[in-house]
Amino acid sequence: MLVSKIISVGDEILIGQIVNSNASYIGEKLYSIGIPVKKIVTIGDTKEALLEELDDSILSFDVTVITGGLGPTHDDITKPVITEFFNEELVTDEKILEHVKGIFRSRNIRMPEVNFEQAKVPANCRVIFNHGGTAPGMWMEKNNKVVICLPGVPFEMKDMIDRYVLKMLQEKFVSNVNYFLKSKTLLTTGIGESHLSEMIGNVEDIIEENKLAFLPSMYGVRMRIDVKGADEKNADDKIFKIENEIRKKVGQYIFGVNDDLLEKEVGKMLEERNLTLAVAESCTGGLISSKITDISGSSKYFFGGVCTYSNNSKFYILDVKSGTLENHGAVSEETAMEMAENVRKKFNADFGLSTTGIAGPSGGTETKPVGLVWIGFSSKEKTFAKKYLFGNNRERTKLRAAYAALDLLKKNLK
Amino acid sequence: MLVSKIISVGDEILIGQIVNSNASYIGEKLYSIGIPVKKIVTIGDTKEALLEELDDSILSFDVTVITGGLGPTHDDITKPVITEFFNEELVTDEKILEHVKGIFRSRNIRMPEVNFEQAKVPANCRVIFNHGGTAPGMWMEKNNKVVICLPGVPFEMKDMIDRYVLKMLQEKFVSNVNYFLKSKTLLTTGIGESHLSEMIGNVEDIIEENKLAFLPSMYGVRMRIDVKGADEKNADDKIFKIENEIRKKVGQYIFGVNDDLLEKEVGKMLEERNLTLAVAESCTGGLISSKITDISGSSKYFFGGVCTYSNNSKFYILDVKSGTLENHGAVSEETAMEMAENVRKKFNADFGLSTTGIAGPSGGTETKPVGLVWIGFSSKEKTFAKKYLFGNNRERTKLRAAYAALDLLKKNLK
Repeated sequence: MLVSKIISVGDEILIGQIVNSNASYIGEKLYSIGIPVKKIVTIGDTKEALLEELDDSILSFDVTVITGGLGPTHDDITKPVITEFFNEELVTDEKILEHVKGIFRSRNIRMPEVNFEQAKVPANCRVIFNHGGTAPGMWMEKNNKVVICLPGVPFEMKDMIDRYVLKMLQEKFVSNVNYFLKSKTLLTTGIGESHLSEMIGNVEDIIEENKLAFLPSMYGVRMRIDVKGADEKNADDKIFKIENEIRKKVGQYIFGVNDDLLEKEVGKMLEERNLTLAVAESCTGGLISSKITDISGSSKYFFGGVCTYSNNSKFYILDVKSGTLENHGAVSEETAMEMAENVRKKFNADFGLSTTGIAGPSGGTETKPVGLVWIGFSSKEKTFAKKYLFGNNRERTKLRAAYAALDLLKKNLK
Repeated sequence: MLVSKIISVGDEILIGQIVNSNASYIGEKLYSIGIPVKKIVTIGDTKEALLEELDDSILSFDVTVITGGLGPTHDDITKPVITEFFNEELVTDEKILEHVKGIFRSRNIRMPEVNFEQAKVPANCRVIFNHGGTAPGMWMEKNNKVVICLPGVPFEMKDMIDRYVLKMLQEKFVSNVNYFLKSKTLLTTGIGESHLSEMIGNVEDIIEENKLAFLPSMYGVRMRIDVKGADEKNADDKIFKIENEIRKKVGQYIFGVNDDLLEKEVGKMLEERNLTLAVAESCTGGLISSKITDISGSSKYFFGGVCTYSNNSKFYILDVKSGTLENHGAVSEETAMEMAENVRKKFNADFGLSTTGIAGPSGGTETKPVGLVWIGFSSKEKTFAKKYLFGNNRERTKLRAAYAALDLLKKNLK
């Protein structure tokens, strides 16, 4: 089996300033093409440490991916060290230079001198184009071992992996990979890990020689199925069988697979049916609206929303009756229902969603504790609100309430 | 200077199922006691890989912290491998056995056979007590080099580091640590890495024998100063001097230090002056509002906002004149100004902020390209809008526009 290694370069990881999430992303992707990572090494911005790791890479790993240290400042050492290690010299790549100049042109700012350096690459490397930034990626080879350098900025690195690196690796190693690793993740929301596992029952009966991992996250539990097949068809068959068994037992909690996003799934459903949405947010503070508008094309079905963070604004902006606020309070079934209904009507949308709750850490009472959230739903046919308790972490409550609102909409779209 | 290394054991990190946040925690703590981490290695659950890393540790690192692989199941290899490496044998520790039994007793469940193994440790190790779980920590020594094994469960590991490990290391190495390491990070927004570096000029003149690292993120560049002082006072003096020089040159771009958040700094300024804010968001889709309400206590100064994602809603909800939308378009200086002014008045707030732009990837034209954003500001005294170009990544444009809006408010609060 082919094996790979990741070298993360940067003092900021060593001193704990940032968490190495790049390595997780790359690890998952290399696994998916049958070249699993066997070692991840993080080193500082020093020449000696990188040279030592490169020696080890060329000796023992088919593929090495290096991230970080490709910027234009004095502390970026990866490019000069790689160039020296492979006995190369740096030459200017005109296409990259045009791209770098274009980035500054498009932002209407003068390009600093130092960015000319960004367009230089080792003479015999294969360039991996960076659409999102100025630092090009580089593919080098020695003794049939591949070393790939990518920038440490996550969205640039991810785009380059997905757009180019995986395909280039698959082309190079097509004859060496006579097995097929595949994984599929089922995404759930609205149920905890232990309840999920209880409903599924004895895992071994379902997965046999394969693997199933439970991965809790802020909005729900992901279940990851890992199989190794003789070929893609065989791996797919194995996954299909396991997924089927799991869906029979907990299908109602699964809202998507792999990289699906609840906000995207809900958006697709709205768009397909030509339906529209508006939201009225209190405790989620704009987060639902922001999640929905993360999806390109959301303007087709999302008319907008209001964030009524003060009591006054619920009354003035959203016309919630003062009687409702006085008798039941801002965090109540009645207020949530009025918010959902009024925002739907104000924006002239098919659906209205609302949230009102106590995100904490302060503001809780005996009867209305921190973490209490009412989520309202309104369509032409019906308006109602549902009560949730999300615990005492502010950030988590916001996120869970936002996903619960989207989940409520999804269930009522079915 | 003393140096340390972290070995993280576990397949789940290699295949990207979990992010290695344990290493960040340990890295920060070891740095704080003057034993900085120079290498972090993640390996799978195999004996060979761990033995190889232990050889390297004993050769080159004063301290090695291993996490993971201490559980009671077949795939937990750390304890047997460590025992073999140090030529020890496993003996039952009665105090640990009592503790393990107690854990099961307190949960009222029978203790499985396999947990008797948890109470065994190498005969000559120093036990690091685990109050939160069944796996004990172990401290081993060879040639004055220390190897510490801790469980991979984050809250158990953290408790053991804070309660015992740091103190034990300080006691052992008290005569070796005759220096003080300190770092401080200056946070900027609204300027790119290369322009920042150009404005600062020759870094060496400012930092002398110390370090300055540029760390780009989605919303701005962080600059981390690292110094080594004779003692804490001396380290503080060095940082003070360097920070001063940097602030002289690029102070207007620095909005905070270390873990500060722009949304928190702006909130503090509003709260201190008893001023209030409302926002009207188009292309940021609720993100500004969500960022502001991430801060506990934001209801004191944040009245709320509207997200007018459709043209109609700008007109109906926010009373932007139809003439403005027809003559100048939704993405224009005029619309941004009306949005900011109208939302301020509607919410009866002191300040209004607005965003309108083309987040992309589609919707751009020759004169209004993807990434164009107008940000509006309105107070009782003045209303204006500023033009920005943020490039063609949707997520990044949203984030940069949100931070640019907060930065605009901050500058006008001064």
